[in-house]
Amino acid sequence: MRVLITGGGGFVGARLARTMLAKGTLAGRRIEQVVLADQVAPPADLAADRRVESRVGKLLGQCQALRDEAFDGVFHLASAVSGECESDFDLGLASNLDSTRALLDALRYRATQGAAPTRVVFSSSIAVFGPDPAYPFPPLVGDDTLPTPQTSYGTQKLICEHLVSDYTRKGFIDGRAARLVTVTVRPGRPNGAASSFFSGIIREPLAGEEAVLPVSPDVAHPVASPQTMVDGLIAVYEASREAFVGRSAITLPGLNVTVQQMLDALEKVAGPKVRARVRFERDERIAGIVANWPRGVTTARATALGLKAETTFEDIIRKYIADCAATPAALRGMS
Amino acid sequence: MRVLITGGGGFVGARLARTMLAKGTLAGRRIEQVVLADQVAPPADLAADRRVESRVGKLLGQCQALRDEAFDGVFHLASAVSGECESDFDLGLASNLDSTRALLDALRYRATQGAAPTRVVFSSSIAVFGPDPAYPFPPLVGDDTLPTPQTSYGTQKLICEHLVSDYTRKGFIDGRAARLVTVTVRPGRPNGAASSFFSGIIREPLAGEEAVLPVSPDVAHPVASPQTMVDGLIAVYEASREAFVGRSAITLPGLNVTVQQMLDALEKVAGPKVRARVRFERDERIAGIVANWPRGVTTARATALGLKAETTFEDIIRKYIADCAATPAALRGMS
Repeated sequence: MRVLITGGGGFVGARLARTMLAKGTLAGRRIEQVVLADQVAPPADLAADRRVESRVGKLLGQCQALRDEAFDGVFHLASAVSGECESDFDLGLASNLDSTRALLDALRYRATQGAAPTRVVFSSSIAVFGPDPAYPFPPLVGDDTLPTPQTSYGTQKLICEHLVSDYTRKGFIDGRAARLVTVTVRPGRPNGAASSFFSGIIREPLAGEEAVLPVSPDVAHPVASPQTMVDGLIAVYEASREAFVGRSAITLPGLNVTVQQMLDALEKVAGPKVRARVRFERDERIAGIVANWPRGVTTARATALGLKAETTFEDIIRKYIADCAATPAALRGMS
Repeated sequence: MRVLITGGGGFVGARLARTMLAKGTLAGRRIEQVVLADQVAPPADLAADRRVESRVGKLLGQCQALRDEAFDGVFHLASAVSGECESDFDLGLASNLDSTRALLDALRYRATQGAAPTRVVFSSSIAVFGPDPAYPFPPLVGDDTLPTPQTSYGTQKLICEHLVSDYTRKGFIDGRAARLVTVTVRPGRPNGAASSFFSGIIREPLAGEEAVLPVSPDVAHPVASPQTMVDGLIAVYEASREAFVGRSAITLPGLNVTVQQMLDALEKVAGPKVRARVRFERDERIAGIVANWPRGVTTARATALGLKAETTFEDIIRKYIADCAATPAALRGMS
């Protein structure tokens, strides 16, 4: 089978590709080729795999050509990130909304030519949730919580969820949308994302560097390890339509954790000296953004699919440490 | 002030224009001009009003020019209808999604040039609600019910609601989305819409003609008179942002009624001979579509704005009869 991963050069996309290629099969079928479409080239290990084809460039420009290709499965991860969408409104609409529609239309074209509907997993985000004044957050957001996004990124993700659902209803694709919680611990360097500290306060101290915590330790948020997210995306792909239930988006499991619990776990795993490298320095801008994020998730439908998040944050830290030990420095440094 | 009504040549749009022009003001400001943009020319009485300008053509083709015009208010009613969107997927996306985005971008352009954000009322629909297998309908759908649309029309309306919300959050417009319940009694002839019978079983018997009821009399559905819908749209326009609460869509009030209650009301108002002109003849296609529609609404936020629907279906019938008596035959015949 042939699989397309958009955003396949990125952190989650590359890990997804590695996981699938290592297993060699997807939904019981042998993987012949994985096409990684991204604005950046894939990491060297993937580029060296003869089953991998890399296509570097904007997704929007690649979609027309997809009408002439048969893919059995698509993981659509490519996306402008939250901060970009907020600072450049047109970029967000083009990268997230227009590109998704062009991709779906290429797959629709194939279906209208008689091909079986392509199975598509769309990676959405819990950024679809936000506290509208009319609808304050419930303590935990669930699959059935009313999404009232408070960012352009969240708005665009939600819109794409509904496109995926409608293209599926019409039989143009076999689509499933999965909302990802915050992935931690991300390797690499701090970036401009407001969520950057969720990785930074673990990654930097473990590497012997200082880290700044910009929000109160009682901030709560759902998180999961990179591998848990990847396993979730694969499970959503492999689920039967009946098991997925309906066409609306599901939230992938996360560990609901406070920042204080994250720091306690760091001390437990790596000792008080490492923990002491995290310094609290409130950043009003970041604290304000994070205040609009869900404090936790319930994930009944993902649980019914057999999916699980980590149950302690120590687990997540230990997995990161194991990844660092196993992975070449070049990959570790990739943001 | 200058007001743009997209879909201003249609039934609801023309009535909205008449109501505003008769009052002469909107949100306390004197109305200098009402521009009616539609694919059809407006009714003769509106065309004859020197304050009315008509623009006939596709909305998508008119939006670029709107960048050079100052409108104080916009009612965005133009839309391909449910049946069209289902049979012609591209038409629905172009007429509903692309046109709305082009309109919003024209208004955004003005805001980025320093103009005050234009106030926009977007007419959405309770078609955003549909029973996803994962989320069966509650007995009554409310403003906070999770929308899982089961038609392309409903999907596109929901997507536009979220665009309106995000453009508003960014300060590009001052937008409000209002979901309309089924409007009845519509004048004119039966059309292809699955909801056509909600008007036909009243209109045809009153005109001395037979009508077919294609669904069981125990079907329940929220309805409102045309004037109640128009008054609701104006009230949503005139509401302060604080009174509207948040940026997510609200549902305009409806009378939750069964078809049996509609028929009983017809008999009460017009007598058993008129009632006897309605003949039950089940249409599986229509019954199947209607089974996916909400059986009733609760409208807490609209009620907080002071909006009310009719409280009996007799009221709705009597208003229709009064409209027929007051309105030239040419308008009555307009679909």
